[in-house]
Order: sequence, then structure tokens, then C-alpha cells
Amino acid sequence: MVENFGFQVLATDGLARRGEISMPRGTIRTPAFMPVGTGGTVKAMYMDQVRALGSDIILGNTYHLMLRPGAERVARLGGLHHFARWPHPILTDSGGFQVMSLAKLRKLDERGVTFRSHIDGSPYEMTPERSIEIQGLLDSDIQMQLDECTALPAKPSEIERAMELSLRWAERCKTAFGDQPGKAMFGIVQGGDIAALRIASAKALRQMDLKGYAIGGLAVGEPQPVMLDMLDITCPELPADKPRYLMGVGTPDDILKSVARGVDMFDCVMPTRAGRHGLAYTRRGKINLRNARHADDPRPLDEESDCPASRDYSRAYLHHLVRSQEALAAMLLTWNNLAYYQSLMQQIRDAIEAGNFAERAALITAGWARGDLPPV
Amino acid sequence: MVENFGFQVLATDGLARRGEISMPRGTIRTPAFMPVGTGGTVKAMYMDQVRALGSDIILGNTYHLMLRPGAERVARLGGLHHFARWPHPILTDSGGFQVMSLAKLRKLDERGVTFRSHIDGSPYEMTPERSIEIQGLLDSDIQMQLDECTALPAKPSEIERAMELSLRWAERCKTAFGDQPGKAMFGIVQGGDIAALRIASAKALRQMDLKGYAIGGLAVGEPQPVMLDMLDITCPELPADKPRYLMGVGTPDDILKSVARGVDMFDCVMPTRAGRHGLAYTRRGKINLRNARHADDPRPLDEESDCPASRDYSRAYLHHLVRSQEALAAMLLTWNNLAYYQSLMQQIRDAIEAGNFAERAALITAGWARGDLPPV
Repeated sequence: MVENFGFQVLATDGLARRGEISMPRGTIRTPAFMPVGTGGTVKAMYMDQVRALGSDIILGNTYHLMLRPGAERVARLGGLHHFARWPHPILTDSGGFQVMSLAKLRKLDERGVTFRSHIDGSPYEMTPERSIEIQGLLDSDIQMQLDECTALPAKPSEIERAMELSLRWAERCKTAFGDQPGKAMFGIVQGGDIAALRIASAKALRQMDLKGYAIGGLAVGEPQPVMLDMLDITCPELPADKPRYLMGVGTPDDILKSVARGVDMFDCVMPTRAGRHGLAYTRRGKINLRNARHADDPRPLDEESDCPASRDYSRAYLHHLVRSQEALAAMLLTWNNLAYYQSLMQQIRDAIEAGNFAERAALITAGWARGDLPPV
Repeated sequence: MVENFGFQVLATDGLARRGEISMPRGTIRTPAFMPVGTGGTVKAMYMDQVRALGSDIILGNTYHLMLRPGAERVARLGGLHHFARWPHPILTDSGGFQVMSLAKLRKLDERGVTFRSHIDGSPYEMTPERSIEIQGLLDSDIQMQLDECTALPAKPSEIERAMELSLRWAERCKTAFGDQPGKAMFGIVQGGDIAALRIASAKALRQMDLKGYAIGGLAVGEPQPVMLDMLDITCPELPADKPRYLMGVGTPDDILKSVARGVDMFDCVMPTRAGRHGLAYTRRGKINLRNARHADDPRPLDEESDCPASRDYSRAYLHHLVRSQEALAAMLLTWNNLAYYQSLMQQIRDAIEAGNFAERAALITAGWARGDLPPV
């Protein structure tokens, strides 16, 4: 067991990196996809299943957990790993993104944000120091700085103000986090869709010598080419020997294209959320099980998959479960979707090691483009 | 593998019977509890889990399945066992009970019932012959006669009319079912809370020489002593060498007291429905996880249980999941509840074999009466 947080690049292929993050609670193979376990549960999944699919780390949402069940309570109960029965690494966001998107009566100033809970209206204050304190109470392994994430499109002056504020908050979070060798606090590059601001943000964060760097404020409404441009500009500004985490991204296609630009870590609600809405990610693209074409189809989602949800249940049955709003629909489709995402990450890691990432990515993309099986 | 439906009483203890139903698809250890798989799924459970808990047979609801996905469709897809991935025995009800409780614009006469679907309003007709046809399309192993179940309290003349109609429908179902050696069609004793009608119904059905006998129209609003009186009166009228199935019953206490009166089979939505409403059945009684007393409780529901849901998750976590309306709450509590019901049935079977059923039942009842653990 390692005692210190560390990151090693094991292989590269173009800008794509195959690496490993080592931490006392486990090793994270990168590029990594982190399933989202918002409120201490990856929705409709048992943690054993999440793990068995090849997840090395999951993400917890600080905002949700601070409201319910409460960070101090989770700490008293032994921390989030024990509470949620996930003994492996956990990354927590800072809470800032959800405060800005979910909370009521928000007021932001230099000190932090005050807001009211979207659940019961009770008042809270979130400062950089409190965010790190909460993430510590949760016992999170990788903690994120509090930042201000600007929805795009936005005025340049607004993007710049938020980016500068986020840098000052990064300093305060670094101080609050202090010296915790087995854990990490990541800074977050902001700057919207403005190249100069992204570069300035990355350079300033780099000066802080953090253990990892996230790229935030993307996949917030801008077209994919804008996001990729920002990655092209930002990644070279980040140190090669530290992990890079693209927050809240994305579709399988987003992931392939971001890995190609040097990103190591991803999280996204898509596979879990889609699973609750009758949608299945497969190597033949995204399939809507609600569609009547599946009603009499005895074929599974993917007969070649290792995942029982993908391989063993007929589309007709899945269609029936979705139409009937059965819990098992979300259970099976979320399972299928996370299996697909994690198998995609495994293919990506294998391809980078083998030095054929571009070819593999092209094959995967061609599979999606070919589309679903013809109807029975 | 046996080819014919058969029933054997292996041991008795007082009126309680330990038996075995043999069928081509498997053996059912009695007294048996059948989890309810309404629409081709035991809600919030994987079939593998249902099986692993010791379920030898599940129940499917003809009414729900005929409306969605449709009996003919299930037949085209290989039958309910294949469709729902449950290769073991399945009992289906006749559809009559749900037609009377859920469907719209019902009209009942000698021929059968016409009604409209509660889902989309489309018209259906259910006759004794169509009920058996549908159950055959589902490939059900134990099929139930169509009957008219009277909600209690009811006027004696009304109870008698429905009972007499149900007897005529039993004859028609028997004819429609014909000769199927590996399967069974059970008749249903009706007669409400009137002893003379129950006896008349049982005697008439016995004359039909059916493969099994259900007791219907109980647990429909009457107090438990009335139900138990009806069992005291009815069971002796039923042949000793045929299984006896008390439909839609019940609480763990109902089950203990009904086994003591000679009942062999049970089904009930309680463990699954309660699991979706934050309620846990345990050897210490029923526990409401929504209650604030559990918010900081690190103890599991039952540290001595073999079921991971009961043994490995803290009450604090379950409380959090219930309050947050997470899918995992229903998944874990349904799992716990079915585990408790099936362990109760195993204890019952063991005790009858050991000849100490009354003592074991008293111990189990004392456990419930002692109540839950004191708060932490």
C-alpha cells in the first residue's frame, strides 16, 4: 500500500496518456471514468456492481451530501467510504457547481457563497475553507477547490472576473487543505471559451504546484468544437506529471476526443441518468428502449458484452420494463451504461498502451456511426 | 426431473404440514412464500437475488401481464419464464381480483367480465376460458380459476351469489385447462365470512378433484380472527393430499397462524411494497427507516442475518436513502424483506420437521413483541 498520493504516466500515444494515480485507498488506472454517486449512492446500483465493472474511483457531490445527510453526520458515521460501503478512492467536487445550479437565494462575494437549501430552504454558507472542511469530513481522497463556474455563453468581463476569483479561492483552498500526503486537492482551470483566460488560469494554477488539475466550466452549453479548442489550448499549459481531470464530461465521443488531447479523468451523470430514462449506451450507439421497435425484439442489447444486463435480457423485456416504469428498468440500463463506459475506458487504456489509440478510436466511432441492429 | 405435477406431505406437526410440490420446472418446498412479480419483475430485485433467498416459485399477475406487454406477445417471446428470466415454477392468478380492483367500467355477468384497461382505457373481456388461455400463453405452471372475490363486509346474498358463480366458473376453467400433467389448475374457495358458504364451496370444489385448492376472499378487510375462523372451518373440508394456498396473505403473523391451521402456500405484496415505502421486516418486528431515530444509527437492521442488505448497511445509511428517495432504498429494503420472509418460511419448515412448530412460532412472535433495539 502506498502512503503518498502519486501519479505516473506509464505510456503515451500522441497526446493521449495511460497512467496510474496511487493513493492509500487504491490505484486509479487512467484514463479513468468516475461514476457519479451524488448522494452517497450511484443511483440504482449496488456498489459491488460499480466496482466489478472496473471503476477505481467514484465521485461524490459535496453540495448534496452537506445538505443530506450532512457532512458532520457522515464524519461521525466513519466517513463517506464506510457510510456508502465504497472502500476505494472517492473524489468530491467542491459543491460550488451545484450551489450555483440548484440552491436558492444565492449570494456570491469574495468571501464565498451564501444560499438556501433546495430541499428545505435552510441557510448555508460555502467558503473555500468550508468546502475543504466538508470534503475532509467526508474523508474524500481527491478534493476540489471551490470555484465559480460560468455558464456559457457569457460576457468576457464576467468570465474573467469568475476566473480571477477562482484563482484566489484556489490559494485559500490550498492553505485550508494543508499537508495531507495521502490525499490531493486539485485546482480548477476556468476562463470560459476565451483562450487567453484559460492560459492565464492554467499558468497561475501551475505556479501553485498542486497535485492535480481539473478543467472546469466546459460542457456547460458550448458546442463540442469550442470545448475541444479549449482543451487544445489548456492541456499544454498543465504540467505533464500531474493528472488532468475534465469535469462533468461527457458523451463517449467527448471522452475519446478529450483523451486524444491529454485528459486523464472524467466524470459524468450521462450513463446513470440515461439509464433512468430508458436509454442504453452501446457499441452501436445510443438506443432508446422506449421506442416501439423493441417491443417484440428477443435480442439483447449486446450479445458480445460481459455485462449480464447487456447480454442476458431481451430488448422486448427492457422495453416492457421501461414502459411500465419498473425499478428494474433503471437498474438494468444503468448497469449496461456504466458497463459500456468502463469497457470504453478499458479499450482506451489498452489502445494507448498498444500505441494504436487513433485507430481504435476510429473503429469505436465507426461502430456508433453504423448504428443499431436492423429491426427484427 | 418429474413429468407430472405432484404433492407430498413429508411431515406434520399438529395441523401444520411440511410438504413438497413437484413439477417439471422444479420442486416447491411448503409451506412456501411466493414473492409477487406483478408485471414480470419482482419490483426492485434481480431474479437471481429472489432465487438465492430460497424462493422456489414466484407469482405473476395475469391482469397486469395481459394489458402490458400482452399475453400473446409473451408467448411469442418464449413464455413468461424466458421473458422474465425466471426458469423456475410460476403461479399466475386468474386476473379476476385485479379486474375488480383496478380496471375501469367493469361489467360482470355469467359469461365473464368486460372492462377497460386502467392504463389506456382499451376494452377487454375476461371469461373463465380466456383467463386459462392467457395463463397458458404465459406458460404458467400453476394456474388459478377465474373467480369473483367479494370485498368484506358484504351482504350474505351477495357473498352467496359470487361463491356460486365462482363454482360454475371453476367447472369451466377445469374444462378449458383440460389434461396437462406437468401443470396444475387450482380452484378457489369463496364464501366470505360465512361458515356455511365456505363449507359448501370447499365441498363442491373437492368434488371436482382439482390438483390444488386456494382459499380466496380473505385478507380483504376483515379482522384477523375472522380470517382464522374461516381457515379453521375450510381446511378440514379440503383433501389432505392436495396443496392449500391462502391467496394474498399476509403479515408474518398471518403466515404463522395460517400454517398452524394447515395452509401450504402464500403470496403477498407486503414485503415488496413495504420495501418501497421505507419499511423493514425483521425478527424484531417492522421497522420504519424513515423515522429520525435511525439518522445516526451505525447498526445494521440485523447483524445476524445472512442477507447483505440486512447485515451490511447501517440504519443511518438506509434512513438517508429512504429520505432521499434513492432507488437503492427500495432495492435494499425489498431485499431485506424478502430475505426475512423466506427465512421465516425456512424456520417454519424446519420446525414442522422437528415437531416443534408451536414452540418456534411462540419464539418468533416473542421476538416481534420485544420490538426493535433501543436507540443508540
